[in-house]
Amino acid sequence: MYAHTFGSDNHAPAHPDVLAALSAANHGHALPYGADEVTRHAVDVVRRRIGSPDGAVAFVFNGTGANLVGLGLALKPWQHVICATSAHIAVDECGAPERLLGVKLVEIDTVDGKLTPDLVRASISGVGDEHRTQPGAVSITQSTELGTVYSPDEVADLAAAAHDLGMLLHVDGARLANAAAALDVPLSAITTDCGVDVLSLGGTKNGMLGAEAVAVLRPERWDRLADDLPSARKQLGQLGSKGRYLAAQFLALYEGDLWRRNAGHANAMAGRLADGVRGLPAVQITRPVQANAVFALLPPQALAPLQQRFGFTTWDERTGEIRWMCSWDTTEADVDELVTALADAVGDAGPRVWPAAGSGTTRA
Amino acid sequence: MYAHTFGSDNHAPAHPDVLAALSAANHGHALPYGADEVTRHAVDVVRRRIGSPDGAVAFVFNGTGANLVGLGLALKPWQHVICATSAHIAVDECGAPERLLGVKLVEIDTVDGKLTPDLVRASISGVGDEHRTQPGAVSITQSTELGTVYSPDEVADLAAAAHDLGMLLHVDGARLANAAAALDVPLSAITTDCGVDVLSLGGTKNGMLGAEAVAVLRPERWDRLADDLPSARKQLGQLGSKGRYLAAQFLALYEGDLWRRNAGHANAMAGRLADGVRGLPAVQITRPVQANAVFALLPPQALAPLQQRFGFTTWDERTGEIRWMCSWDTTEADVDELVTALADAVGDAGPRVWPAAGSGTTRA
Amino acid sequence: MYAHTFGSDNHAPAHPDVLAALSAANHGHALPYGADEVTRHAVDVVRRRIGSPDGAVAFVFNGTGANLVGLGLALKPWQHVICATSAHIAVDECGAPERLLGVKLVEIDTVDGKLTPDLVRASISGVGDEHRTQPGAVSITQSTELGTVYSPDEVADLAAAAHDLGMLLHVDGARLANAAAALDVPLSAITTDCGVDVLSLGGTKNGMLGAEAVAVLRPERWDRLADDLPSARKQLGQLGSKGRYLAAQFLALYEGDLWRRNAGHANAMAGRLADGVRGLPAVQITRPVQANAVFALLPPQALAPLQQRFGFTTWDERTGEIRWMCSWDTTEADVDELVTALADAVGDAGPRVWPAAGSGTTRA
Amino acid sequence: MYAHTFGSDNHAPAHPDVLAALSAANHGHALPYGADEVTRHAVDVVRRRIGSPDGAVAFVFNGTGANLVGLGLALKPWQHVICATSAHIAVDECGAPERLLGVKLVEIDTVDGKLTPDLVRASISGVGDEHRTQPGAVSITQSTELGTVYSPDEVADLAAAAHDLGMLLHVDGARLANAAAALDVPLSAITTDCGVDVLSLGGTKNGMLGAEAVAVLRPERWDRLADDLPSARKQLGQLGSKGRYLAAQFLALYEGDLWRRNAGHANAMAGRLADGVRGLPAVQITRPVQANAVFALLPPQALAPLQQRFGFTTWDERTGEIRWMCSWDTTEADVDELVTALADAVGDAGPRVWPAAGSGTTRA
Repeated sequence: MYAHTFGSDNHAPAHPDVLAALSAANHGHALPYGADEVTRHAVDVVRRRIGSPDGAVAFVFNGTGANLVGLGLALKPWQHVICATSAHIAVDECGAPERLLGVKLVEIDTVDGKLTPDLVRASISGVGDEHRTQPGAVSITQSTELGTVYSPDEVADLAAAAHDLGMLLHVDGARLANAAAALDVPLSAITTDCGVDVLSLGGTKNGMLGAEAVAVLRPERWDRLADDLPSARKQLGQLGSKGRYLAAQFLALYEGDLWRRNAGHANAMAGRLADGVRGLPAVQITRPVQANAVFALLPPQALAPLQQRFGFTTWDERTGEIRWMCSWDTTEADVDELVTALADAVGDAGPRVWPAAGSGTTRA
Repeated sequence: MYAHTFGSDNHAPAHPDVLAALSAANHGHALPYGADEVTRHAVDVVRRRIGSPDGAVAFVFNGTGANLVGLGLALKPWQHVICATSAHIAVDECGAPERLLGVKLVEIDTVDGKLTPDLVRASISGVGDEHRTQPGAVSITQSTELGTVYSPDEVADLAAAAHDLGMLLHVDGARLANAAAALDVPLSAITTDCGVDVLSLGGTKNGMLGAEAVAVLRPERWDRLADDLPSARKQLGQLGSKGRYLAAQFLALYEGDLWRRNAGHANAMAGRLADGVRGLPAVQITRPVQANAVFALLPPQALAPLQQRFGFTTWDERTGEIRWMCSWDTTEADVDELVTALADAVGDAGPRVWPAAGSGTTRA
Repeated sequence: MYAHTFGSDNHAPAHPDVLAALSAANHGHALPYGADEVTRHAVDVVRRRIGSPDGAVAFVFNGTGANLVGLGLALKPWQHVICATSAHIAVDECGAPERLLGVKLVEIDTVDGKLTPDLVRASISGVGDEHRTQPGAVSITQSTELGTVYSPDEVADLAAAAHDLGMLLHVDGARLANAAAALDVPLSAITTDCGVDVLSLGGTKNGMLGAEAVAVLRPERWDRLADDLPSARKQLGQLGSKGRYLAAQFLALYEGDLWRRNAGHANAMAGRLADGVRGLPAVQITRPVQANAVFALLPPQALAPLQQRFGFTTWDERTGEIRWMCSWDTTEADVDELVTALADAVGDAGPRVWPAAGSGTTRA
Repeated sequence: MYAHTFGSDNHAPAHPDVLAALSAANHGHALPYGADEVTRHAVDVVRRRIGSPDGAVAFVFNGTGANLVGLGLALKPWQHVICATSAHIAVDECGAPERLLGVKLVEIDTVDGKLTPDLVRASISGVGDEHRTQPGAVSITQSTELGTVYSPDEVADLAAAAHDLGMLLHVDGARLANAAAALDVPLSAITTDCGVDVLSLGGTKNGMLGAEAVAVLRPERWDRLADDLPSARKQLGQLGSKGRYLAAQFLALYEGDLWRRNAGHANAMAGRLADGVRGLPAVQITRPVQANAVFALLPPQALAPLQQRFGFTTWDERTGEIRWMCSWDTTEADVDELVTALADAVGDAGPRVWPAAGSGTTRA
């Protein structure tokens, strides 16, 4: 339908290496449900990347599934999850956490999609009161739905605050690779090393066809969680029978550094886009550009034709704020075409020099 | 791990055409969540195959997901599902229907994995009594978990009985292709034409990497179901973001007749296996061989080495009954190797002439 | 433990007429589960009071149960309930709506515990988007958890707004009697006549031992709801076997005007208390006093001994705001004793003349 | 409606002492939700009766609620409950365990409503298999729905078998008093002393208006269960605000021996009824008469008028088997009237001499 869009990183195709990995896995018979060699290998690769050699890792189909399995492990029925109002689990999962886990989400307004220890603590009341749900987990998204990134210290502080309050820290890492690339740190530095307990590790948005992982990072601390992971995944409908095809996708991205190259490239393209747009007075960038998303306000009259051509969406119907998302396959030419079209549409065709990719862009 | 097993049709790799279809779909950007052209095309193909041009079709990740979405659509919270004791939803989904749908399964013992109108009617009591769950749906598996096949008339009779009692008929068609191939009828002849209301249409076991479909076959009768399908799929965690890669697998199998060739071949190999085994007095075939499964009792001392070599499982721990499952890629040589090894193991090396594939095998 | 408290209207004993009604119902055998004559009579009485002669009415055990049954009837699994952040269903039911109904609550901040059509409309987004829960019901509390009262016009406007948006209006009427008494209107004037669809009608806080009712007020509009009520009540654990003892309590209050006298008296005592407190400069009333609750800020040093003596609770731990609740059995002497103790505690023993009950108190 | 019926022990009124206890509790204010003195006293009384001085005891509204709270405590989401096919949780709770707890019931056919260790063990398969629900609890009913009674040894053997398999033993004791009276043992002898873990202790059927209790009997073994009890009760909608009125009912029955007198009398009346009926060749008693129920087959033509007059129900629509249930208020005259009417109806008016109550009746 489109050669390229800025609608979402899930508009992009799969990276060729991912398809090649599927082909490589596609011979002979294999035990199903993750008892195969490809899965064993991929689990070890993921454990190494997240710095949790004994962590429990299970591959699932999509981000909603990863979040459900991970949060479901961590919670008693009367415990709630503290998350940002903008969190994917709160906004974009059609109430699956409430329906399938029976869990209440305590949603907290944030400036930039990021929780803080103070925000978490301020939400706590009624501890020990049978009339109230009890705090069970803090869930953050890394990078966030608003394109921002938690620093390792910020994650560590949240983990400490959560643990002090008897909660676990869950990370929805559908775009964890983008965060690590933006921060220029290994994945372990923003997960296990910071005290994260349960992780959804993304793949689809970073070049897979469709696969995510759930990881219990510190099984020695919460061993019940690791033990329960297989049943939780199965019961929540997230166990694939031909497990090698989920695992192979993880091998393609995470055995080498393709995960980082893909994510870093998407981030750089967002930086290039932001830099280009900053020269257009009629366009206002509305959020810090820290990963692969750029949020902006455009002149209303310019919106419709640009959206049609570049396939991006209105993020907030009330304000008209839009989101441009870059992906592993966004090219400099794609970005420049959008910026030029923007400039034309908003009547600002002055001299512009495109900076080298990413230069001058804020990174957390 | 194994060159070939008889453990399950999900031990098999994907058919090359399926991988080719993924590659064909893997260029350019596409709208996510099934709003792409590949999905539109594949939905039309499936509709045509099942004879329901206005049917609602949604692709999902696995069989548990397909069954959950379909049954969830069809039921009020206090309605129960009538199924065979051997049904996948009753045995092999880790209680997902109970947990995620909150639904009670009324499980009925059968001789051969097949419900009948009489069995269904005999299970009905307490209609209108607020203390009892109320009959909501009959769910049958086609072909069954025991390798048997419902004839079109049997399905039609069950649909009529279900409808008379105010219930819907749900078909778990993880192996629907095997049934249609065995019966030598189109898929529509055992679904829409018989009055089936909701269908799980399998793909994984017939050569896909991993994809299934949910279909509401008669939306004019139950239009609520079709309207609710998108939300039900999303909330149950079964909506893939890069929808084209689920849809492409369906195109590969169902646009032409690969679905039938794959399934028919697997059936024929099961027939060949049954024929070969019938010459071995020490081996007893325990179920009618009507699709791609052969159930048997072996001398206990022969079991362990054969299982290790051919990767098949004990179906019933109490009786020692085992199951051999043939798949799209089972070869005549694979079958003959198993039969020879069996003959050697049970000390019966008399003269055997392998029949042509499938000849002499009972088909329902 | 206490002769009298201002902690909650559920600290109070049952009205003697309620116990008398239990005794009156306590002879001979009766069909269980509401098939008895006392229940039939009480259902008719409630229908008449709420102006819904064909309404479906079911007695349940407590307010949580009433809200669960009523909301459960009204919602599909992917629909959400819009309520005030202060709503009992959001704060004080331990996540029961999320756990037992699987439903998401969209909680809206309000000034005074009251939703408005504008607040409801502003919360709507993503209609028709499968990723989002869909608006299913607006739930308001009457009188509210903050002691305020919706006027009939306000309820009617909310009903109209809800219906325009395809939603139902649910009223948590645990203290509906207090609202009707405060407004000096019949119960029907703030329920059926305003377009309310589903009602929790309170009894416990107004002098019963423990009983509430669920009513579907406009079954002709939502006949599915009325049909489903018996199964919903049973499955949610709210069907009492000796139904006459729930029903008899409703007869005691609602056959005559005891419901109004009890509620009106509690309201009047809250008015008397507010009037008395207004003469104390050190005490600040923080909310409009419209029903039987008075919210206030006290000098912190005065708090502990007064709470111990009068058994009232801190409403908001962050601000120190406290709540005094009057009940059907609060006497003028009880109120005056509290006011005197307050005056003594805050060092303001100036001349005070107690007004006649209720005079000078704001009523919505 | 009826002076007396043999329909169910919940057709009976409350015992006068229960109403007197309500009146005695009905003065002054009390802290709600079980924080009152009456509740504290009643909890201690129940603990003493069941021989569990440190047990956790919580009062709830009805039997469904007690079972849900108790079983919910004991189970992970993917664990199943093993129970008899005739169990109340399987038949008469409208699927509440499945809906509210998400739990699968594995229902086992029995001769007399009683599970045995062998039946339990035979149901176990797939332990450790993520595709299968895992055994979590055995639930038995005492006395059973078929009027039979487990001996202390039988309960102890079931507890041992359950514990060996990693399960808890739950007892639905809606009629536990009838069992203890039939066995002439204290309640502790068939609960804590036998290793029972979680108990639903009945009240309603033995003379209360409506109240049951949940008890965790061995909190030192399963301390999580006791800790979680308050939240579980609240979230499942079973926490009464004016807790004293549930507790007072327990005081009335269990502080002295009224519980035993009521139950023993009901049992004796069933014995008298059975003895009377045994003289009628046309009437066949179909189950051992061990508590307060008598099951029988009558000549079909005699059924309708007798049911209308004596208010009893057909237990099994397929066989026509009926159930007579005696209650605390059944008199010898009531029994004799039924037997006489039976004799008249079945055309057998021969000489009959009514034995003294209970004599000659089998007791387990």
